[in-house]
Amino acid sequence: MKQNEKISTAVIRRLPRYLRALEDLENSNTERISSGELSKLIGYTASQIRQDLNHFGGFGQQGYGYNVKDLKAEIEKILGLGTRYRMVIVGSGRLGQAINSFIRSYSDDFCVTSLFDVKEDLIGKEKSGVLIRSVDSLTEYLKDNPTDIGVITVTKENAQSVCDKLVAGGVRGIWNFAPTDLDCRADIPMENVHLSDNLHSLVYYINHPEQI
Amino acid sequence: MKQNEKISTAVIRRLPRYLRALEDLENSNTERISSGELSKLIGYTASQIRQDLNHFGGFGQQGYGYNVKDLKAEIEKILGLGTRYRMVIVGSGRLGQAINSFIRSYSDDFCVTSLFDVKEDLIGKEKSGVLIRSVDSLTEYLKDNPTDIGVITVTKENAQSVCDKLVAGGVRGIWNFAPTDLDCRADIPMENVHLSDNLHSLVYYINHPEQI
Repeated sequence: MKQNEKISTAVIRRLPRYLRALEDLENSNTERISSGELSKLIGYTASQIRQDLNHFGGFGQQGYGYNVKDLKAEIEKILGLGTRYRMVIVGSGRLGQAINSFIRSYSDDFCVTSLFDVKEDLIGKEKSGVLIRSVDSLTEYLKDNPTDIGVITVTKENAQSVCDKLVAGGVRGIWNFAPTDLDCRADIPMENVHLSDNLHSLVYYINHPEQI
Repeated sequence: MKQNEKISTAVIRRLPRYLRALEDLENSNTERISSGELSKLIGYTASQIRQDLNHFGGFGQQGYGYNVKDLKAEIEKILGLGTRYRMVIVGSGRLGQAINSFIRSYSDDFCVTSLFDVKEDLIGKEKSGVLIRSVDSLTEYLKDNPTDIGVITVTKENAQSVCDKLVAGGVRGIWNFAPTDLDCRADIPMENVHLSDNLHSLVYYINHPEQI
């Protein structure tokens, strides 16, 4: 990356898409790919792809294109993969459990070390090998177990206080599934997955197919 | 909406955010709000908010602002809420069940009529009151039960064939949670929730806090 260059959010959000395409290409034993071929695969223009990757140094060669394995490794490096991120999930209802099982099956880069809940009948149980602890012990747990990512799958009403505890406990990022926007220290990144927003956008396009 | 005006995706994606804010305002008995106050609540600029809403006719009054109840009703109308959307969820693992329970608790506008799975031991069971059927019966089910939205929570490998069956069966929109991009008829809207992309973006910002 060029020093001090601010990369737009849109570029950053396209990197994981590149990574998925490169994983598929590697799995199908493709060694190299041009920006034109990559464009056909993922639907961004070739010029967009070249521009995006140029922010980080380019990686392509005129007349050759991109080496799939190398480009994949570079993008993983840019994103910060290849190390292990410890996560806790607060809220161990169906969504919390779904995220827990997604993380387990998804990648060794991520590891859920504990689930938390308020429900007495859940505390002490295990889900996919991960213990559910009382949310009352969250602060102490984070003190003893440095954690990178806090996942919030509690109700809208409880989300802000959980977020505050996670941040005070030193997490480096928040993944929020509660259907509300949370206040958080400006240096702590937060990703929101607002399922209802997603569903509402879908419904809009169902009713306005001419706008697709 | 002005006739034949193409509204940008970015505007459409902000509408659900306005709706959430207006719901909160209505719940706290706020009758009216200025674009400036709304801006403070949701973080878009006041001018952005006015511009966004002007695409659909404005709804605000100089010196008064927006009537919360009316604006909420207008946005619901624009999105197409206030009617019932029938949904099926294909893939009744933890994620499918989480979506099912989210929909049930979320709003009467959406109703999951059936879950589908390939696993023999799940077929015939009920989850939150919804029957799990064999994915082999999906095509016939859709013929007998017109369905608005098909939700895909199966593996990457099975997602495209499920998508094809849903579209052939007449669904009007696809909500895809499988970690892959699907080919679909151009007039069928598709919303993707790619959890891994989301997590990767978060990791990037954890490693580049100066870029937040």
